[in-house]
Amino acid sequence: MKKRALTGYRPTGRMHLGHWFGNLQNMLEIQHEYDAFYFVADWHALTSDWADPSQIRLFTEEMVIDWCAAGLDPDKCTIYRQSDVPQVAELAMYFSMVTPMGWLERVPSYKEQRAQVTDKDLGNAGFFLYPLLQAADIALVLSDVVPVGEDQLPHLELTREIVRRFNSTYGEYLREPQAVIAKHGARVPGLDGRKMSKSYQNAIFISDTPDEIRTKVKSMMTDPARKLKTDPGDPELCPLHQVHKLIGDPSRIESWEDCCRNATCGCVAHKNEFANDLTEYLADFQARRAKIAATSGYAEEVLRAGAKKVIPVAEEVLATCRRHLSIDG
Amino acid sequence: MKKRALTGYRPTGRMHLGHWFGNLQNMLEIQHEYDAFYFVADWHALTSDWADPSQIRLFTEEMVIDWCAAGLDPDKCTIYRQSDVPQVAELAMYFSMVTPMGWLERVPSYKEQRAQVTDKDLGNAGFFLYPLLQAADIALVLSDVVPVGEDQLPHLELTREIVRRFNSTYGEYLREPQAVIAKHGARVPGLDGRKMSKSYQNAIFISDTPDEIRTKVKSMMTDPARKLKTDPGDPELCPLHQVHKLIGDPSRIESWEDCCRNATCGCVAHKNEFANDLTEYLADFQARRAKIAATSGYAEEVLRAGAKKVIPVAEEVLATCRRHLSIDG
Repeated sequence: MKKRALTGYRPTGRMHLGHWFGNLQNMLEIQHEYDAFYFVADWHALTSDWADPSQIRLFTEEMVIDWCAAGLDPDKCTIYRQSDVPQVAELAMYFSMVTPMGWLERVPSYKEQRAQVTDKDLGNAGFFLYPLLQAADIALVLSDVVPVGEDQLPHLELTREIVRRFNSTYGEYLREPQAVIAKHGARVPGLDGRKMSKSYQNAIFISDTPDEIRTKVKSMMTDPARKLKTDPGDPELCPLHQVHKLIGDPSRIESWEDCCRNATCGCVAHKNEFANDLTEYLADFQARRAKIAATSGYAEEVLRAGAKKVIPVAEEVLATCRRHLSIDG
Repeated sequence: MKKRALTGYRPTGRMHLGHWFGNLQNMLEIQHEYDAFYFVADWHALTSDWADPSQIRLFTEEMVIDWCAAGLDPDKCTIYRQSDVPQVAELAMYFSMVTPMGWLERVPSYKEQRAQVTDKDLGNAGFFLYPLLQAADIALVLSDVVPVGEDQLPHLELTREIVRRFNSTYGEYLREPQAVIAKHGARVPGLDGRKMSKSYQNAIFISDTPDEIRTKVKSMMTDPARKLKTDPGDPELCPLHQVHKLIGDPSRIESWEDCCRNATCGCVAHKNEFANDLTEYLADFQARRAKIAATSGYAEEVLRAGAKKVIPVAEEVLATCRRHLSIDG
């Protein structure tokens, strides 16, 4: 029997190239190697977007459409929406019993994000409790592994600690998930050279039209030291080239590197070719996406089928936890 | 239509005279005046007794038996177990979204109890989150009023604030509960003169046998300044007399006050009469209790019927909250 893997993403916006080359490529591989559980984390989205949750539902459906158009197979993996499995709220509540306040206060990203994020109010209890809900997501399906980026290792370690404490208090039952460092985690630069992120407004979305791609690429940063076409440039410092490398034909990539270093070509021409290459690269995906998006109720149907697969798993795990807590049975 | 009232108690031990003269007498009156929801708060018990929850189930059943033997009518009011209505965990989670951390940190009883209680570990997140779960208990049945003691007013005020914030963020829907100061809230002194409390080990339980009552009353404190039978005493300072007043025949009570002040009677004789009076006072209740306790599955049946009444209410309220949060519908 295949091992179980679980991962979830927050539906707080449309997917961009950063997600495409990171999350999605990992998910595509993992669905073959594992019994994969992929969930749209709408409750996690609420922890930060609670003041205006009106877009979460739309982004949830868009995310499912993106996933399936990119090649996730709903018959092979289990795609579901977090809020369709309310058992997770109850398990998170049980986890709150065995989790010392200090464990939550010490989560590295908690203080960081509260300090950095200024356009949203993260002083709510829900944001503080995020790690409990996350631990419950993982434990509720007895996931064996969780694919994570290096930066998420402390979060997973906290989940492991909570599971260990639950097991040592109420008897061994829940599975302690192992981290699997995700293969695809390339830092994809955005239009301004910083990490691509919706909140930096520097993202190229995978659903952008050819015109939108062209307009965005025109404004994309190249090697900032190369002021004139006659200045030699360094392709390693060119954000546009870093993204181009991920999709371009290797011989063309090499040729752009040479002419940039020798100042025999200009950034405008490079931008044109990159915009064309990217449009072509995304064309198959976008065609599948358009077809899926035109199928009325597609995302809801995928989520309904996923809920039907995951709920019996969640119910059994929760019932066993209840027995261990002497609440039932 | 009658207004709804809700109140719940934690099944952390057997019921004693403090509960009898406070909680139970209030509940008996309220079931006639209101559409009353009475729940056994087993999840709240977990917040403090998480390290060993093995007794919670037993105390839950004992509490239901005590309630019904004392005169709560399961056909008139709705008696249920908190964990039979898992919707409350989900609503508490939604409340965590709109509740600033500071509101929870400032709950007066939180710091107090963490400082005072030394035999249990209250540093867990669950204890900190108690007020969210409490707010959800109340809001989930759209309770109009909550009978409280003066000391619980800040807790109810927090519930009202959370409900107001939820309504102002997602649209007016949940009911802001009004406090009704409970009529019966007499401070019942325990065997050692301190407030009667299980944790002080100074309690006379309402299920104590006549022999247990006699033994306990023998050790009960009287006016500590009255060292000898020939010393005049002050019945106002006599814990035994304070409890006797709650149940004794008024003319006998007056007579004990006189002879105490005049040093014409002794505490041993007073103890004997009090033990007899208390045994007689509890006899009807204990007979009904014995009958009920001998009925196999009685408590479970009451809880099952209660769950059947409350779950449809909870489901509708939660579904409406989900729509307001744009999660469903």
